[in-house]
Amino acid sequence: MLDFTQWLTLPVKAIDQNAADAALTRQSQLTKPAGSLGQLEQLAVQLAALQGTSPQADHVHITVYAADHGVMAENISAYPQSVTAAMIRNFASGGAAISVLSKHLDASLDVINVGTVSELEEIKGVQDQRIANGTANFHQQAAMTEAECQQAMLIGQHNVECCLQNGTQIYIAGDMGIGNTTAASAMACAMLNLPASQLAGPGTGLNAEGVSHKAQIIAEALLLHKNHLDSPLAILRYLGGFEIAAMVGSYLHCAKSGLPVVIDGFISSVAALCAEQICPGSRQWFLFSHHSAEPGHSAVLQGLEAQPLVNFNMRLGEASGAAVAIPLLRMACALHNQMATFEEAAIAGALNS
Amino acid sequence: MLDFTQWLTLPVKAIDQNAADAALTRQSQLTKPAGSLGQLEQLAVQLAALQGTSPQADHVHITVYAADHGVMAENISAYPQSVTAAMIRNFASGGAAISVLSKHLDASLDVINVGTVSELEEIKGVQDQRIANGTANFHQQAAMTEAECQQAMLIGQHNVECCLQNGTQIYIAGDMGIGNTTAASAMACAMLNLPASQLAGPGTGLNAEGVSHKAQIIAEALLLHKNHLDSPLAILRYLGGFEIAAMVGSYLHCAKSGLPVVIDGFISSVAALCAEQICPGSRQWFLFSHHSAEPGHSAVLQGLEAQPLVNFNMRLGEASGAAVAIPLLRMACALHNQMATFEEAAIAGALNS
Repeated sequence: MLDFTQWLTLPVKAIDQNAADAALTRQSQLTKPAGSLGQLEQLAVQLAALQGTSPQADHVHITVYAADHGVMAENISAYPQSVTAAMIRNFASGGAAISVLSKHLDASLDVINVGTVSELEEIKGVQDQRIANGTANFHQQAAMTEAECQQAMLIGQHNVECCLQNGTQIYIAGDMGIGNTTAASAMACAMLNLPASQLAGPGTGLNAEGVSHKAQIIAEALLLHKNHLDSPLAILRYLGGFEIAAMVGSYLHCAKSGLPVVIDGFISSVAALCAEQICPGSRQWFLFSHHSAEPGHSAVLQGLEAQPLVNFNMRLGEASGAAVAIPLLRMACALHNQMATFEEAAIAGALNS
Repeated sequence: MLDFTQWLTLPVKAIDQNAADAALTRQSQLTKPAGSLGQLEQLAVQLAALQGTSPQADHVHITVYAADHGVMAENISAYPQSVTAAMIRNFASGGAAISVLSKHLDASLDVINVGTVSELEEIKGVQDQRIANGTANFHQQAAMTEAECQQAMLIGQHNVECCLQNGTQIYIAGDMGIGNTTAASAMACAMLNLPASQLAGPGTGLNAEGVSHKAQIIAEALLLHKNHLDSPLAILRYLGGFEIAAMVGSYLHCAKSGLPVVIDGFISSVAALCAEQICPGSRQWFLFSHHSAEPGHSAVLQGLEAQPLVNFNMRLGEASGAAVAIPLLRMACALHNQMATFEEAAIAGALNS
């Protein structure tokens, strides 16, 4: 078993150029004008390159990591902290968006409590892996200790390890944590060297005054910690959250192990950017699902040179946007694997007649 | 049984404002920040308004109308005319994109030959309803006689009538016909009063010189027929194609009967615009799936005030783009119908705490 530092320094798995070339060749032989399936062709080829085989998106796993945030003490959310726990129960009982979508997609779903502010009753379908009673208030001190941050990342790593053993073909991580757009925005400011005013947004529904206050809290925190934010890991520890650190750990392990990830919205993209900064090249393993309505998402996507598949003005989190992209991947795979070639359909003759 | 003219003058079915209001109310009660599912919420509400009930997209029917075009004599396509027949066989044998997608989506699929240039052998899974040996060359004369155009429209009407009896919840029409972007572009020029140079595009793959020649052929045809293009029906008859007229007939019957339609790409949108011009208000029954890579599509969408769900740079036709939108509709329905309300999830308390 590797220790944390050894694991962290493992390289990203290389993509399979032969599989990519074979997929490109097959696309050129399918019964359609070259390129006429647009991005669905590119998706199939990209997935083939990652999976080293014909592209597959049947076995999808979704994990929602949930936690609370100390920075809630600064009055930065339209929703009270108790909603985190209420939504964890809702995930488990099947009423949340991601519960409906994972069932609809026949995807397996894990819900992991990595740190609600208080202990919850035992809930069927929820893994209790609470690291602490929420993070510390990063407006006053580091959100996590080094040990806490590592623990959260290793929860993500372990979750992916289980998926690898279960034949998962596509991994999705989602987030739940009232206050976590504040943490993610702060991280994005530090990673992209952008002002809080550009990255703070309404989250669950702040008004303009609320957004402005949120930006100020973030700006003050960035100032407080400015001498410590010298690495992506430090940025994660000082400003992040347990669920964000777990996502970073899961994304890193996907990239190191060769499991394609579909990235969700704002929080998820911030975790993806952090993973890419910790272990450059990780981004190759990420497919970007949707452009969130949270205004800071644009800058984070730009930092990742990512163009998401769809823009539905969604801003829910929970992995809901990533889930929405799964049928698109599946159709890309079906078309790639099941369409006839010109030769099989005897259209080559028609084309030359 | 109504005759053609009586049918044509039937009004569009009104949408159900009560169902829309009920759906909007339900959306506001589901366990998510208001509006956070973005366009998926709007889709569910729109579908509820059309269907007059909770939105449903399980029973999807796809019809591909195929025909040949006399204007092929003017050398306006990168592909030979024989590809139309070859692709009809490919639809039936399961190798075409729409065959794969309809199977993947568990949608029923009709393939109707409304006028290939020569008679085809009997093909299992293809309805032979050939009106003539392709349309006439509209660069020289009207593409169809009045009787032919009506016959094509009634084939579409009849197809939708069958769907209504079979419990179809969403109707999709697709096109196959080498040369049909030339016909559709000419129709769009006449309906939108735009020059051929703005609407002619590469179709299956013309180079710049080919596109320029295609635009010239269209411009000359518009000049030739200019005294006859005084109604959308005349535009359809002089410049259209059998498959396009069948699509127009199907769209009109959907709008008159109250069956929601998912519109495909360029050809399909031109047929939708023609239906809207023939029977204003039809457009309410149309959901727009994708923005095609065919450059003329933008102007046609603008003419319909339509903003498609996705932009994947597709340009295949065959209903492939509309099919790609079906899982999005289905997820919108699942979320709308299956998510818990705040009350059910006992989150109302958390929100007020």
